[in-house]
Amino acid sequence: MMPEALIEKSEKPRVVILGGGFAGLELAKALRRAPVQVVLIDRQNFHTFQPLLYQVATAGIEPSSILYPFRKIFDDQPNFYFRMAEAQSVDTDKQILETSIGYIEYDYLVIATGATTNFYGNAEIQKKAIAMKAVEDALALRNTILTNFEKALQIKDEIQLNSLMDFVIVGGGPTGVELAGALSELRKHVFPKDYPELNFVNMDIHLIQSGPQLLKGMSDQAASEAKEILEQAGVKLWLNCRVKSYDGFKVQLDTGESLCTRTLIWAAGVTGTFLDGLDRSMGTTGNRLKVDPYGRVQGYENVFAIGDIAAMSTEEHPEGYAMMAQPAIQQGKWLGKNFRRLLRNEDLQPFRYNDQGSMATIGRNKAVADLKVFGKTYKTQGFRAWFIWMFVHLMSLIGFRNRLVVFINWMWAYFTYDTGIRLIIGKKKENVPVEEVTEKTVV
Amino acid sequence: MMPEALIEKSEKPRVVILGGGFAGLELAKALRRAPVQVVLIDRQNFHTFQPLLYQVATAGIEPSSILYPFRKIFDDQPNFYFRMAEAQSVDTDKQILETSIGYIEYDYLVIATGATTNFYGNAEIQKKAIAMKAVEDALALRNTILTNFEKALQIKDEIQLNSLMDFVIVGGGPTGVELAGALSELRKHVFPKDYPELNFVNMDIHLIQSGPQLLKGMSDQAASEAKEILEQAGVKLWLNCRVKSYDGFKVQLDTGESLCTRTLIWAAGVTGTFLDGLDRSMGTTGNRLKVDPYGRVQGYENVFAIGDIAAMSTEEHPEGYAMMAQPAIQQGKWLGKNFRRLLRNEDLQPFRYNDQGSMATIGRNKAVADLKVFGKTYKTQGFRAWFIWMFVHLMSLIGFRNRLVVFINWMWAYFTYDTGIRLIIGKKKENVPVEEVTEKTVV
Repeated sequence: MMPEALIEKSEKPRVVILGGGFAGLELAKALRRAPVQVVLIDRQNFHTFQPLLYQVATAGIEPSSILYPFRKIFDDQPNFYFRMAEAQSVDTDKQILETSIGYIEYDYLVIATGATTNFYGNAEIQKKAIAMKAVEDALALRNTILTNFEKALQIKDEIQLNSLMDFVIVGGGPTGVELAGALSELRKHVFPKDYPELNFVNMDIHLIQSGPQLLKGMSDQAASEAKEILEQAGVKLWLNCRVKSYDGFKVQLDTGESLCTRTLIWAAGVTGTFLDGLDRSMGTTGNRLKVDPYGRVQGYENVFAIGDIAAMSTEEHPEGYAMMAQPAIQQGKWLGKNFRRLLRNEDLQPFRYNDQGSMATIGRNKAVADLKVFGKTYKTQGFRAWFIWMFVHLMSLIGFRNRLVVFINWMWAYFTYDTGIRLIIGKKKENVPVEEVTEKTVV
Repeated sequence: MMPEALIEKSEKPRVVILGGGFAGLELAKALRRAPVQVVLIDRQNFHTFQPLLYQVATAGIEPSSILYPFRKIFDDQPNFYFRMAEAQSVDTDKQILETSIGYIEYDYLVIATGATTNFYGNAEIQKKAIAMKAVEDALALRNTILTNFEKALQIKDEIQLNSLMDFVIVGGGPTGVELAGALSELRKHVFPKDYPELNFVNMDIHLIQSGPQLLKGMSDQAASEAKEILEQAGVKLWLNCRVKSYDGFKVQLDTGESLCTRTLIWAAGVTGTFLDGLDRSMGTTGNRLKVDPYGRVQGYENVFAIGDIAAMSTEEHPEGYAMMAQPAIQQGKWLGKNFRRLLRNEDLQPFRYNDQGSMATIGRNKAVADLKVFGKTYKTQGFRAWFIWMFVHLMSLIGFRNRLVVFINWMWAYFTYDTGIRLIIGKKKENVPVEEVTEKTVV
């Protein structure tokens, strides 16, 4: 029998929150003054501000600027307890969560485990591509890009050289578009100065999108502007195209064409991360847990789900809200308020999503934004959208020190056309050693 | 036969610098306008500002603030070539250096490979202790400290708990003293807020020094003041004491006593890192290469050594200068000037060391400094020494952006009594899994 994890017993009901992403973090904060014991479980000791991961990957900002230790965020919240642990399964009858540090009893369980990269079942791609979902992914991409150029200096063979200097990004959502934009900025302003011995005409950036448009879910105007900006920046767009296979060197497309690269970046979608022991027969939608308008997982009284993992079906969004930061943040805050109502025996309020629109930045002075203010949509592109994007993201960072440091980094990069964090530390992706690829392999 | 590394052939003589520490970096800079081709070889793509590694280890500053990509430092120096590679051996007859990327011809070879941690031949300590010489070490220590506290929350057994919460530092030089000071600051101001469930009375910091005094090489006044500050901060000092063995759990001292810790930090000394193929029969001193007053390795015309690896014997320093930043920086600059003289067929100048003194910071407002100005020594302690330490180290950082970011971090930490980078990312040292240690193991 698994031992019990040591957490102080409290007379107050215990709310166990599984996952400290946007949803879990906001919920824990919202329960600050609630008469409950809050226990947050996460595999890592920090929250990740995912929207800026691509800037870590492209050496624009320090990882520590977008990672916040949970204990620091909550160091003045007495009802908050954190445990760094991996959840293994749940026994909903006994109200017990099994984790890597022992079992944890709960009165209320909130599943906020979020989503993970969706490789659509392709194990080889999963093994050989770089995802863009966690800080380890971002650092691996940074290390891989820089290591590739260091290796390229020793290569004469053209196919080999291209495989090191070309980058293929799969997925035309915000992450893919922002990465492609950031890489093209680096190709223009930074890499030629760092590597005067390499010819950056050889560096191709491919962006592959399964559908006919980029930035699905945004306005046609935003989509076509993003396409234009990327094409002007020299990014090669492959619309209505899918990747069939990748062996660490050759990307086979379903159009019959193929691309050579050692760096395939997979930003093609996400899928829910489940917890063993939960009765899924009650229904899932697109690999997410079906929840009622109060966030309850179908079939349970005291198990809730919020954020990416929760599919809350509404008329406007029959498949649930988009798997993005905004619905997660709002659901976290709202569920916190509902818990306080619940404990006062008041009526619960159904969730109402306040769509504030969405944006993507593509390069220097260039972004697209569909803003929703009091129900009206304002579409804007170019410098204004870029400025709004910067302001909104800066203000979303946790802590004044982080805002200041990121602001300095951004201003510095803006005026010097340079970023400072082109370091190779830690893991990188090395699928096929350069020496092992001969022309035969390529044919 | 190893292939030749691809580096542009130049009509100018090629100076190959092995190692981009303080000595190699300053030499490469000093050769900016010299009629030579500069090829810098380093295993990493960045220079490490080692004096502040202990602040990375204690979560005070970002790694990127003390790491500078070589390519960025030299992006406007046309005669500079960088290769990320490991040197394997040298053939001084053929003037060829063998490296992990192929062989490299040289006209002049400068060995600036520095020093590595000295475990005095104890392989088990080498395997189980954490060194404090590279950024990977510093990050491993940061991860280990934080992981230990997360684990300690699940432990009731007193011996187990102490093994996780106690830290043993070996070596009473600047690194050991500064680490002990920083850990005691964290124990006082930061950790109790982060881990309100742990009792930090249980956290012991031990500092072990083989000799009778801390900060060997500094004045008696500095040494005794450092001792007093550390004792007041609750650091347990073990003078005239050596570590005999460490199994990942138990530190056996030569006094017969033993300490239990999962974290042994080894800052007990450094030793030169050699290069195969060099005729060492000509003499080494304390595992360093003997060089003449012009930096030439004994027995060679065109092989030089500078920095920690070079033992330049003088009347005042028969064993060579101290293995510290200052002699390395000055030798790098001086050898750069001498190369220009050499190429103009002028007389070479022997090296003259300008000792500017040394300092160590021990905590908030507390430091010791022996400053040498125009040959006179000024000894100062307390707030003034601390302020001078901060100013000197801030100004030594490369790049205005880094100075600004570190300054903000330091000011922030000073006024909020908090630092922000308590993240667990990447490797940590796990010698003995908690589960495997029973009371039997300890007895």
